[in-house]
Amino acid sequence: MVNIPQLLQEDATQTSEWLDGYFDALKDASAQHLLAAMRYSAMNGGKRVRASLVLSAARLASSQQSSLASSQQSSPASSQESYQPAHLAVAGAVEMLHAYSLIHDDLPAMDDAELRRGVASCHKAFDEATAILAGDALQTEAFSLLSKPGLMADASRQLELCAVLARASGVVGMAGGQMLDLQAETSASDPAQTKIMQELKTGALIRASAVMGVIIGGGDKRMQNAVDKFASHLGLAFQIADDLLDYQADADQLGKPAGRDAEQGKASFVELLGLEEARRQADSLIEDGCASLDQFGDAADGLRGLAQFVINRNH
Amino acid sequence: MVNIPQLLQEDATQTSEWLDGYFDALKDASAQHLLAAMRYSAMNGGKRVRASLVLSAARLASSQQSSLASSQQSSPASSQESYQPAHLAVAGAVEMLHAYSLIHDDLPAMDDAELRRGVASCHKAFDEATAILAGDALQTEAFSLLSKPGLMADASRQLELCAVLARASGVVGMAGGQMLDLQAETSASDPAQTKIMQELKTGALIRASAVMGVIIGGGDKRMQNAVDKFASHLGLAFQIADDLLDYQADADQLGKPAGRDAEQGKASFVELLGLEEARRQADSLIEDGCASLDQFGDAADGLRGLAQFVINRNH
Repeated sequence: MVNIPQLLQEDATQTSEWLDGYFDALKDASAQHLLAAMRYSAMNGGKRVRASLVLSAARLASSQQSSLASSQQSSPASSQESYQPAHLAVAGAVEMLHAYSLIHDDLPAMDDAELRRGVASCHKAFDEATAILAGDALQTEAFSLLSKPGLMADASRQLELCAVLARASGVVGMAGGQMLDLQAETSASDPAQTKIMQELKTGALIRASAVMGVIIGGGDKRMQNAVDKFASHLGLAFQIADDLLDYQADADQLGKPAGRDAEQGKASFVELLGLEEARRQADSLIEDGCASLDQFGDAADGLRGLAQFVINRNH
Repeated sequence: MVNIPQLLQEDATQTSEWLDGYFDALKDASAQHLLAAMRYSAMNGGKRVRASLVLSAARLASSQQSSLASSQQSSPASSQESYQPAHLAVAGAVEMLHAYSLIHDDLPAMDDAELRRGVASCHKAFDEATAILAGDALQTEAFSLLSKPGLMADASRQLELCAVLARASGVVGMAGGQMLDLQAETSASDPAQTKIMQELKTGALIRASAVMGVIIGGGDKRMQNAVDKFASHLGLAFQIADDLLDYQADADQLGKPAGRDAEQGKASFVELLGLEEARRQADSLIEDGCASLDQFGDAADGLRGLAQFVINRNH
């Protein structure tokens, strides 16, 4: 069994270092103030669960590729511990997209949050105009990364990376979900509506991360579909776990005032289902999601461990 | 000689109809309120100069392709008047990107503009949170359009479409330029700094539009470079013409309070150069830009006429 906390830590470190290098390479840009704000938020990356999803799915896909290669050509399987620049570029793109969404969610007109992961949110550390532009430009940079010539040998697969991220992020994905979440503040929600909102707001990018990992790792459509199914369950479990944390954790541990979502009238699974039922559903979702990984045997242990980690984390 | 006002009108109409159909196709999206805000701003498209640039450059490239084809295969040249769906998709993507930038520029934290082209700006017609998300999602939709499978037969050329737009829009392009423009409000600017700011803020997307037109029309690298050079001159001339309008037009004609940029202390060519010199430089830029189109003969008349139109418009 893979040592998951260690692997997650290494994924997060490698992704952060890669991002750091990426921003370094932009040191000649005229708009240094904007770059500083982008960097500030992108480097405040927390556990980088989405990057780990990309990298774990890419490792699964690569191991299938290399076991195919070794059975056909007797070449040695590549080390699962190595980080390929193309995998890190995709992980970096997903983290930039996520960072953009957090910057804009924190704006005064949205959630009006002064803290993000225990430090000043972007518009507090800089100003509102700079934060809007930093979010905008981080989104652009994600697509810039994914469309870079030669990232993949197969250009049509590379186009799929862009298409998957775009679909997950726009009006039928994350941005649409954030809109529904804001609307839920002023109108009553039922569990079905809350599920749709969460699938868009959080779930879509989590699914996209896993699917993009399969694509960059060279996995086939069958693996892509299986991992997508796993990730759709994971996404919902992830959000339930987040809601549980919001109710249970104290402010110090979480880095934002606990119970804040409830105060703002935001739709939450805990409020709708109660603590015990929410916890039971999260466990059951992870179990169902992992079932679709059975076909890959031990090679999917990374994704399984990541799923367990996600619902058991306490901050 | 092409009838330019008529052609521009037809380009604008076709692009708007195409966008309308695109939003219609999203009628099942959960976030209908967000979609309405995106549509509101994207359909308030003005003259759609960027779409015309895409379409004119695509016509130039297509005519070269078809004259090659007819000389080699004796097939009839395709009608220059027809609008190909792929050309309109690229024009639509550029207009969505532009609409996003206007929505965010108008926000209270940025230019705080209540009107855009004579009607309520997005955050006035909806609210601030919705406007931020509408801009965000329009940017995403632009990349979604460009990464759609099969838009071009050659996937690596299609990836270039995404890469060109991303580069033009992000920290080394439009968003960076907007940041520099905001910073110029509080510090003195010289003509060199103002030129850099304008090249990023306005010029980059104008160049990208023309280059993307060549790519989608199937033009080669040589045409791409020549049209890029033309468009870089056009972009600066366009901004000078805008500054001239801001000083001269009255509020009714322009749809926003005249002289407003000057009030806000925004860097302007007219302020830096004076009216007469600014006008002279715009003419000279257009002349220099058009010189790089000489090699294409009459086939580039559309782009030439568009350039003349851009600096002679009075609203």
